[in-house]
Amino acid sequence: MNIINNPERSQWKELTKRPELDTVSLHGMVGEILSEIKTQGDVAVLKYVAKFQGVELDNLAVTEQEFEEAENSVSSELKEAILKAKENITLFHSAQKFEGVKVETTQGVTCWQKSVAIDRVGLYVPGGTAPLFSTVLMLALPAKIAGCENIVMCSPCNKEGKVHPATLYAAKVAGVTNFYKLGGVQAIGAMAYGTETVPNVYKIFGPGNQYVTAAKQLVSLSGVGIDMPVGPSEVEILADETANPQYVASDFLSQAEHGADSQSILVTTDKTLAERVILAIEEQKELLPRKDLVEKSLQNSSVFVFDNMNDAIDFTNEYAPEHLIISTKDYIEVGDKIKNAGSIFLGPFTPESAGDYASGTNHTLPTSGYAKGYNGVNLDSFNRKITYQEITREGLHKLGATIEIMAQNESLDAHKNAVSIRLKD
Amino acid sequence: MNIINNPERSQWKELTKRPELDTVSLHGMVGEILSEIKTQGDVAVLKYVAKFQGVELDNLAVTEQEFEEAENSVSSELKEAILKAKENITLFHSAQKFEGVKVETTQGVTCWQKSVAIDRVGLYVPGGTAPLFSTVLMLALPAKIAGCENIVMCSPCNKEGKVHPATLYAAKVAGVTNFYKLGGVQAIGAMAYGTETVPNVYKIFGPGNQYVTAAKQLVSLSGVGIDMPVGPSEVEILADETANPQYVASDFLSQAEHGADSQSILVTTDKTLAERVILAIEEQKELLPRKDLVEKSLQNSSVFVFDNMNDAIDFTNEYAPEHLIISTKDYIEVGDKIKNAGSIFLGPFTPESAGDYASGTNHTLPTSGYAKGYNGVNLDSFNRKITYQEITREGLHKLGATIEIMAQNESLDAHKNAVSIRLKD
Repeated sequence: MNIINNPERSQWKELTKRPELDTVSLHGMVGEILSEIKTQGDVAVLKYVAKFQGVELDNLAVTEQEFEEAENSVSSELKEAILKAKENITLFHSAQKFEGVKVETTQGVTCWQKSVAIDRVGLYVPGGTAPLFSTVLMLALPAKIAGCENIVMCSPCNKEGKVHPATLYAAKVAGVTNFYKLGGVQAIGAMAYGTETVPNVYKIFGPGNQYVTAAKQLVSLSGVGIDMPVGPSEVEILADETANPQYVASDFLSQAEHGADSQSILVTTDKTLAERVILAIEEQKELLPRKDLVEKSLQNSSVFVFDNMNDAIDFTNEYAPEHLIISTKDYIEVGDKIKNAGSIFLGPFTPESAGDYASGTNHTLPTSGYAKGYNGVNLDSFNRKITYQEITREGLHKLGATIEIMAQNESLDAHKNAVSIRLKD
Repeated sequence: MNIINNPERSQWKELTKRPELDTVSLHGMVGEILSEIKTQGDVAVLKYVAKFQGVELDNLAVTEQEFEEAENSVSSELKEAILKAKENITLFHSAQKFEGVKVETTQGVTCWQKSVAIDRVGLYVPGGTAPLFSTVLMLALPAKIAGCENIVMCSPCNKEGKVHPATLYAAKVAGVTNFYKLGGVQAIGAMAYGTETVPNVYKIFGPGNQYVTAAKQLVSLSGVGIDMPVGPSEVEILADETANPQYVASDFLSQAEHGADSQSILVTTDKTLAERVILAIEEQKELLPRKDLVEKSLQNSSVFVFDNMNDAIDFTNEYAPEHLIISTKDYIEVGDKIKNAGSIFLGPFTPESAGDYASGTNHTLPTSGYAKGYNGVNLDSFNRKITYQEITREGLHKLGATIEIMAQNESLDAHKNAVSIRLKD
């Protein structure tokens, strides 16, 4: 693996660059599918299910019976783990509830915010070789806690028309109201525009491949909210000489197994640690079933050694990692200096996998440096803050002249008049 | 004006439809300008300033001297009004500061959120016939309160290369760090990609015409955050027999003067009120300097009469107005039933103009029904919430098995191993 020593600041932009998501080149093709779904509804959706999911479906919705069958086939060990994760995610996201305060900005002029759940949300959970029941929990639980009335979930079924039991079990315990066996562009299109079967939603959440991301981007252009753009997953480990090289290597590899395009980087002030971590990665990776994938992904990975922690922190803020593990002696102080990251894991006993599954934090996080402008999914993502104001007759007398003068200077006479006509009475 | 009595629910979707923002058709042309700016920087920006703003500029940045000249030429009456508005906006937005709570989800597993300001934000203020110093305050004050370090503002200069003094004065008092004389696509492109003169930013805010909106949409595809899509401004007045028809008419007209594409609607349970409001609009509009514009905009406007308030409220939630004025006897109760709106104005003495300028709430709000999935700009818009977690050795022993079982069932062995290797020690 590449070790880079004290790179010049002028190189940082280049060194922290991720491959650009070239979803724009997909917009033509994805846009055509979306507009077919918009105009033809279920007919178009079923056509693309057959084409891309390789299955002919009579019924897009998961039935009550399928949910029951799923519940019966999940092991009690896994059920217990899912319920424990649910408990922690619920505790942490419930603590994010917002209570607006009333502020009297001028005597008789009172303003406040009220947090109101988005009525209809759409949650996308990718399919693939393994069930992503953790993503089900991370999206549906906050939606439920926020109070969203319609929680629509889409995830692709297999060639037999079945969704993985653990996915359905998680959806059931998390409070999903409608579950459809839809993947990819057809899922996003159906939730954005609505069809005879699938209700339209106001905001769409969840990870996905480049087609899903392109579809989310395109529907967002016509006013459907989306959580964030999503690129390949990534971790940075920021470590000093107190870090355990075996632990660091295990975190490095747990990111690397996500996919060939995943990125793990180590930023450290200790050259010896860097060398030990590289050795430990070589040893540990031999034992992994996904070794081939991991080796591909390690080609995107680098180790950066800095002479001092301040530079290492500045570099981290430029990289803006999705996940940041801090394993230094003063990890609390270092953590406080981070300005750009999705989720931060503090100390030697806090692996990223804890947050991926069960610590309570959300694992839907900004990749690709987007943490500079975005945060991960949280309770707020499922709410809007509506502002209220109430002005008394007295309050309008106090504030009226200010409004009138400003309106007049912006040449908005009717705005002024709406105040003047009330003040005259 | 069109009076519609008790429309069937099946018609509501059609009746509440706004003209679709056809910015997608502009993407080709706008995209070309953006990519020129991305590759050529200032050279391209200056070219488009000459082409679209009709002025040759040597220096894109507003100088300290220009700020001083502006301060000297604004009337003390307007300065005082701007400072009063600043005070109220500051009071209300400062009260939105977020303090994360630490939650111990499992013994030894502690999670929390920290609100961190976006380091670099870009604020766009449109030009036009009148200065929009109110928009300057609405964007820059929350950015300053949030703690954004680089607050970049763009607004077009006139043919003499000057920005309106009131705009510059407001920018100065609100804490803008860099002000560039840029409008339209060239402003959005410069802030998204950065040029030799203009620093790049991580999130772009502010209203604008269809070109600005198209440019914001396009830069958002490559990961620059944007506040929201913006369409024509709109107001709904929800009123019963206790409303004052003259006040309602004045609010109706104050929205109508924004532009020919603005929309005002009245939703009422009282037919007599509807008729009186229409008469009052006819009278009041004769006195307005922008009468021609108002008459065009009134063509987009309608009056809806419902037999009962519950239907009127449901219809309002379907319309999801940017601004909602509630003038009913029980306006607090009615206001509590609203699920979809940008900002709500309660009672007879709370005109929309109060929130447009000086009550303290933000006037950058979701139009076109986007209030179903978006909220207006607030303090949070300038922050991200980073999640933190800290697990003790004991905590990992308590939670480890849950993580291991979930990771194994998602076929992520390295995720499991990151826990197992720590538990073994």
